[in-house]
Formats: sequence, C-alpha cells, structure tokens
Amino acid sequence: MTAAPLFGIILAGGSGTRFWPLSRSQYPKQVLRLLGSDSMLQSTILRLKDRIPLERLIVVTNAAQEEAIRLELYRKGLTGVQLLLEPQGRNTAAAVGLAAVLSAGLGEDGVLAVFPADHYVRRPDQLHQALDEGLKWTQAGYLVTFGIQPTRAETGYGYIQAGPALEPGGRALLCSRFVEKPPLELARAMLAEGGHYWNSGMFMFRRDVLLAAFRQYLPEFYRGLMRLRGGAQVEEVYADLPPVSLDHGLLEKAQRVAVVPVDMGWSDVGTWGALPDLFPRDARGNVILGRSLDLDSRDCVIYAQERLVATLGLQDLIVVDTPDATLVCPRERVQEVKELVAALGRRYPLELSQHLTVERPWGAYTLMESGPGYKVKHIVVEPGKRLSLQLHRHRAEHWVVVQGTALVTIGTQVQRLAGNESIYVPPSTPHRLENPGPEPVRIIEIQTGAILEEEDIVRLEDDFWRGPEASSPGDDSP
Amino acid sequence: MTAAPLFGIILAGGSGTRFWPLSRSQYPKQVLRLLGSDSMLQSTILRLKDRIPLERLIVVTNAAQEEAIRLELYRKGLTGVQLLLEPQGRNTAAAVGLAAVLSAGLGEDGVLAVFPADHYVRRPDQLHQALDEGLKWTQAGYLVTFGIQPTRAETGYGYIQAGPALEPGGRALLCSRFVEKPPLELARAMLAEGGHYWNSGMFMFRRDVLLAAFRQYLPEFYRGLMRLRGGAQVEEVYADLPPVSLDHGLLEKAQRVAVVPVDMGWSDVGTWGALPDLFPRDARGNVILGRSLDLDSRDCVIYAQERLVATLGLQDLIVVDTPDATLVCPRERVQEVKELVAALGRRYPLELSQHLTVERPWGAYTLMESGPGYKVKHIVVEPGKRLSLQLHRHRAEHWVVVQGTALVTIGTQVQRLAGNESIYVPPSTPHRLENPGPEPVRIIEIQTGAILEEEDIVRLEDDFWRGPEASSPGDDSP
Repeated sequence: MTAAPLFGIILAGGSGTRFWPLSRSQYPKQVLRLLGSDSMLQSTILRLKDRIPLERLIVVTNAAQEEAIRLELYRKGLTGVQLLLEPQGRNTAAAVGLAAVLSAGLGEDGVLAVFPADHYVRRPDQLHQALDEGLKWTQAGYLVTFGIQPTRAETGYGYIQAGPALEPGGRALLCSRFVEKPPLELARAMLAEGGHYWNSGMFMFRRDVLLAAFRQYLPEFYRGLMRLRGGAQVEEVYADLPPVSLDHGLLEKAQRVAVVPVDMGWSDVGTWGALPDLFPRDARGNVILGRSLDLDSRDCVIYAQERLVATLGLQDLIVVDTPDATLVCPRERVQEVKELVAALGRRYPLELSQHLTVERPWGAYTLMESGPGYKVKHIVVEPGKRLSLQLHRHRAEHWVVVQGTALVTIGTQVQRLAGNESIYVPPSTPHRLENPGPEPVRIIEIQTGAILEEEDIVRLEDDFWRGPEASSPGDDSP
Repeated sequence: MTAAPLFGIILAGGSGTRFWPLSRSQYPKQVLRLLGSDSMLQSTILRLKDRIPLERLIVVTNAAQEEAIRLELYRKGLTGVQLLLEPQGRNTAAAVGLAAVLSAGLGEDGVLAVFPADHYVRRPDQLHQALDEGLKWTQAGYLVTFGIQPTRAETGYGYIQAGPALEPGGRALLCSRFVEKPPLELARAMLAEGGHYWNSGMFMFRRDVLLAAFRQYLPEFYRGLMRLRGGAQVEEVYADLPPVSLDHGLLEKAQRVAVVPVDMGWSDVGTWGALPDLFPRDARGNVILGRSLDLDSRDCVIYAQERLVATLGLQDLIVVDTPDATLVCPRERVQEVKELVAALGRRYPLELSQHLTVERPWGAYTLMESGPGYKVKHIVVEPGKRLSLQLHRHRAEHWVVVQGTALVTIGTQVQRLAGNESIYVPPSTPHRLENPGPEPVRIIEIQTGAILEEEDIVRLEDDFWRGPEASSPGDDSP
C-alpha cells in the first residue's frame, strides 16, 4: 500500500433553506454558529486539519456564497485552503467532479475524501480512524462510504445495506445496496434487522477510480469533466452537467463499493428538528435558546435570537425568531420549511437572501432602518481593522461615533473622531473608516440621497480580497 | 317621566394584559386600533356623543394611563369629556362610585349609563334605542342592565337570567339572577333553555338610586364615597375601597334590577381569540393580518405588525408579532395570556410596559436601538406641531433630518434644517423641534452621554398639557 497523499473535498454549496430564517441564501447553514462559537464550516475544517493539511483541503461552494465562505475562512486563519466556485449548485456529483479535475497538487492516484461542510461530529478521533481504514480500501480500488449505526427508525436519511466483511474479521464491509429515504415501515424493519447504516454523506476514493466510475456510469458527465481539465470555463461546462448526487449517479451503480462503519457522534443537523438531539432539554423536553419566556410548553424548539419570544402551552412546535423574520411550524413538518422558503421568494426577497446584520472582514454592519431617501446603519469596526478606501456617487453619509475612537479619512483630511463626535461624508468623496484602538468602534451611519443602491460603491483600496470589481450583488457598502 | 340629563361613564382603566404584546401596561387595550383607524376608546365615545354631549361623558382611567388616554382624546378632538383618574385600579364599583360623586354637573337624580371603553358595537342605533328604553326604567327606580342574546355556549362571559316583562308586552324584563362565567355544561343548558343573556357590562341607573344601593349593600364603600364627596383626596379614600365589581358587589344583591335585551352586534373583544368573530377569515378559517406568509395552517389568528411572520401547518394557534416581542399560544389557552404577562414582570419590564414606538401629541418616536452610552431614535413631527422647549442635563443629541424641513431652536439660535442636514444639541441647552411645513418631518436622533435616563427632561414651555412637573415615569424625551 502506497502512502498516497490524502485530499479533502468539503462540500459547502448547500443553500440551507431548511434553517430559514436563521439561514439565508447569502448566509447558508454551513456558516451558521448553531452549535458553538465556530461555524459548521469552520468546525469541519478544524476537525480535519490535523489529518489533512489545509492546502490539500478543497472547499467547493456556490459563487453566490463566496463572500460568506471567504469570511469564515479568514476569521479562523484558514485561508490556506483551496476554494472552488460553482457558478450554480449542480448537486454533489458535479461538486466532487469539479474538485477531482481542478484541485491543485492532486496526482492521478491521489485519494479524495468528501465531507459535507455542515454536519456535526462529536468524536473527530473516530472519524480519523475511519479515514485510515477507508484509505486502505481506496488503495484496493474501492469506492468507500462511511456508515452510521442507526439509533432510531429515521425516515430523513438514506441507508446503506452492508454485505460481508472485506477481509475476515475486518471492519470494512461490502456495500450491497443503497436505500433512499425510506418510509417509516421500512426504516423500522432495517433498524430491527441490523446490518443497515445511515449514509453519512462522506465518501473516499482514488481519483483515477472515481474518474473511471464517472466514465463508466455517467459518460456524458465524464466528457464535461474532461473539457474542464482541458481548460474549458467552469461556467460553460457546468450548466450542462446533470444535477445528480454522487450516491445516486455513481455509487449505487458501481460494483466495488465499501462501507466503513464509524461511531463518531454524528448528526447531519438537517433541520430545526435536530436541535433536541444536540442541546440539553428542559424538564418538559423543550430546547429553549435566547431571550424567551415559556409557560407549560412541551417538546418544542424555541430559538429567540434577539427579541423576546413568549410561548404558552405549545406542543411539538418549532418557533424561530430573528430580527426581521419569524417562523412557526410543527416539528413533524419541519422538512417542509424549504417549500415555505421557496414561497417567500417573490414577496419577501430580502428576508430570503440576507440578514439585517451583515458580517464583513473588518467587522459588521446592521441595517437599522430603511425609508424613502435614507438608511440607518450600525457599523462595528473591530480593533486594528479598516474598511476599504471608497466613494459613493449618489449618497451622502452622516457618521456619529457612539463607542471607541475612529480614524476617519475624508478626501485628503485624516482626523480622529471620538465618542459623541460626528462628521459628514459628501457624495463622490473618497473616505475611509479605521479603528486604530483596542476596543470596537461603533458608528451610527445615516445615509441620505435619492439613490441608495447597495451597488453604489467604488473601492479604491482594500485590505482584504475585495477589489473595485469584486462587488457582488449583495456586497454592499460600507 | 322627567327628562333627566343622561351622563355616560366610560370605564377606561383596564390594563388589557390579554392583548399583550400589542397592549402594554402604558398602552392598554382601550387605546388599541384593533378594528380600524379609531381606537376602542375613540369608537366608544364617537358612538355615544350624538346621544350624550361630550361634557356629560366621564372617562375614568388609571393615573398610569393618563398620557395614553389624553392623547386618544386629543387626536379626535374629544378633549371636552371629563377625565377622572384612579390612583390605582379598584374594579368597576369603585370607578362607577368615583364618577357618581365627582362628575361635574351631575344632579342628585341625574342618570348615569356605564360603558366599558373597549367593547365593539356594530349597530350603535340599537344601542341608542336600548338606552331610551333603559332610561324609562331608571326613572322608575330600577338598576338597569343590558343583555346580549347568546349565540353560542360561551364560558368567558357572565349571564343574566331574565324573569317576566316589567310591563305587559314590554321589552324590559325583570332580572332574576346573575350567573358568573359558567362551566361549559351550564352554558349549554342556558343557551338551550333561553331567557338568559350575556351580561354586556353596560348599566344604567339614577344617581340617587345607585347611592342608596351602595349604602344598603356596601355600607363601608358608601362611607368612602361620602368622604370623597366631602372633599377627601382620592388617593386617601381609594386604597380603602374593596376591589369589587359593580355586578357582584351590588347588582346581584339588589331587588329592583331590570335587563334590557339589545341586539347591537356586540363583542367584548376580550382576547386574541375574539378576532375570528370580527375579521373575515380565509378559506381555511384563519385570520391573517399584516406582513405574513402561511402554508396550510387552519383556524389560526396571525397578527404580524411589522416584521415577516412565516407559518406552516399550524392548527388553532395565536401568533402575534410586534417589533420587540412575539407571542405564540393555542387559541384554547388564550385566557392564560394574562398569567404569561404577569410572569414577564421582573425579567422583561420594558416589553411589559411600553412599545418601541411611543405616540406623542406632536407625533411619535421609535426607539431604534439602545446601547451603553447611546440611544438611537426615529422622531416624526406632524405638520404644524412642535415639541416642548426643553433641555437635558446629562445627554447630548445629534439630529439628522431625513424627511421634511424642521425649524430648530438651539439656545437662542433658530434655524431651518432641511433633509440631509444635521445639528448638534449640547447638554443643558434649551432646544425645540418644530415642523412648520405641510409634510411630516422625520429625524434620526442619536443621544449620547453617560446618563440616558428617560426622566432627564426639563420642559420649559409646551403646546400641550404637559408641564415641567407633568413628567410621569414613562413620559420621556423628546
């Protein structure tokens, strides 16, 4: 067995609609800090980086989410990873195929392990051991899956039916069948029978084995990948790739597929309904997080981000409150939240795509109010950080410092602005906001003007990765 | 029969906790605009004023709600009514007794009609006819009640059992018994049997007859009223009055009590559960008001004041969303909202007492954000109105005009401030904000200072009823 270099593909393109209103299209589930101070993506990378060096980790995401993903990497000093942008989501086969042909440094027989960016793993050491076991079988030419021992008759997961062990007394098993999300009866039968595992969505294979499988089972798809390898633009190729999952399009059809059982305290954190498995429950079975008051509810999930949520006598409900949108639905229908989010689209585009608070590499801003001819924002600049040197063609800005001391550039003038001091930024004037001090600077910004388009920003100079041309539709001032 | 002058007592002291979070202790149910552009109190006065002149209408309210009540009267030009302030709520017998002894112009044999300030009446003409009928029997010495024909076995109301007609073929009946809020079985039996009416909470009697009944059935209470008539301070007397309802303390014991049935399209609008009777329902039985999106809910009340409320698959639930607090509870437990509100008290005093938007005679302000050392408010000054000339000892204010043109006084300087212009108000400097123009003036105000107590306001001059000493605890700047 050769010590082939192990590469990790982190699938971070999910839109995470099932965690709306906490997730938004520009703030998907993988960047949520649902389970602690690190986001799902950060946790995924941090649990791998001792096993797979950062430069061999490839994060595949949707171009629309680039800003949010880069920010997550930047915040934890994880910018050494490779980032591949999909022009649009085309399911997992496309994302994995893209990484297989475009990852830098990946040899013909390099080994790729695939990880969803938004799952929870309580025992990373178990994951690492399973990767070692999997690696052995990838070298023998197997496509390797990782299976979770079921603990309940879950109908929301796919299952893998295992056959005999690949070697006598060994851990890895032959994979005999994939079962899509089953009806309850079948889920119960599989649980009772044993030998069935939840499909964790983690996979592992040699690159040449994967590409051979693509050629055999998805030949058209394979030709697309070859065009990519030949230098074709991703945008050209991607639109033609069928949006098929790696499991369904490839693994279900392949012959030599292995499953490595792994007991790593796993959850896919698929919906709000997963929270009762991940958080302590109160005496009546509720998970209640944030600013809330409950009388006599049972088996509910209540998530109050900022405002007060008062509940009384509820049963098996999900209540999620964010500064601009609230969701209420029964736990048993939580899978349908994605349909609800689809219905938001035309009527409530802002609540679909963005939060009122938008994180930036220098800090964050919160849209406090928006009216005809004006916007009010709360801007936080972290210590030592500064915004880009920028100008706006159409709007003026009034800044009032309410915490810390800012260094302010307006035109050619540079001055300090302390608490309770204010300044005016005329239109078309280059300006910059900087925090030279040890505490956060907080500024209330009042924008005025007939045109307050978010795109009205010209970046003249930036400390981060954002050039004047980098402004994406949601990438607004300041 | 003499044409005794008819006076109206409007009971406007309710705390309205059952409509939280739309009602607050300083913004009780009677000032809510639940059912149209007029508040419950305004509607109550407007439906009476053609029958009872304004100066003979006495609004009795709690001193803590004076500001909110005065504002409602001011807004509709109803300031001609008499206003009596209770130092604390002591139930209806005390409020009616207070009005009976302190109303200006009320003769010994004047007739008093009592109206809750927060009920709904679809057909005021029917009410007027019933008042005429009641008046006749007050002259004959009866205590008159008004009964509503039940349409369902309601357990939330009191009932009046009627006896024989007071005159052959006449409308008014002898009242034979009062029944407190009944259990369901009894409510069903009364509905089936007939001859039982919902107690509307409206009453009518000659003043001398009322006082005689007080003397006979509540002698200690009567002595308190006589002290009041003798010039004692309300504060002294009121604390000793037992908090008893007029029905329970007096009418249930009296002999000559009449009931006038009236079919006026009445609702006491007692809880959120009353809305389905007052608003059109959608095809699935929901009343959905405001900025909301629902998939497949049934028989719910969803009230979204400002932010987006998205609901999915709910059944028989109440969801009420306001800018700073959200309520979710089952319809069948809506009576318990008052217990929930009681539980709010210590932990969430602001959400109990006030809204983020506070109405003022000159317009309104909204607290947008509050942080250490600063507050941000949105101030709206209505055309032709101005705030008091005032100063603050501890805080500075930054004003940025975002709509209209304000006339601003700072110290001895008076200047115009147009859109996109800003000005600074130093501490301890007299200042005034005025709107001389035809459109509302909108200003973003940023207050800064170590002390941002709401009580830090000295009013030097005011267009309204508020002197420098009139600042109540919740009566804050500007």
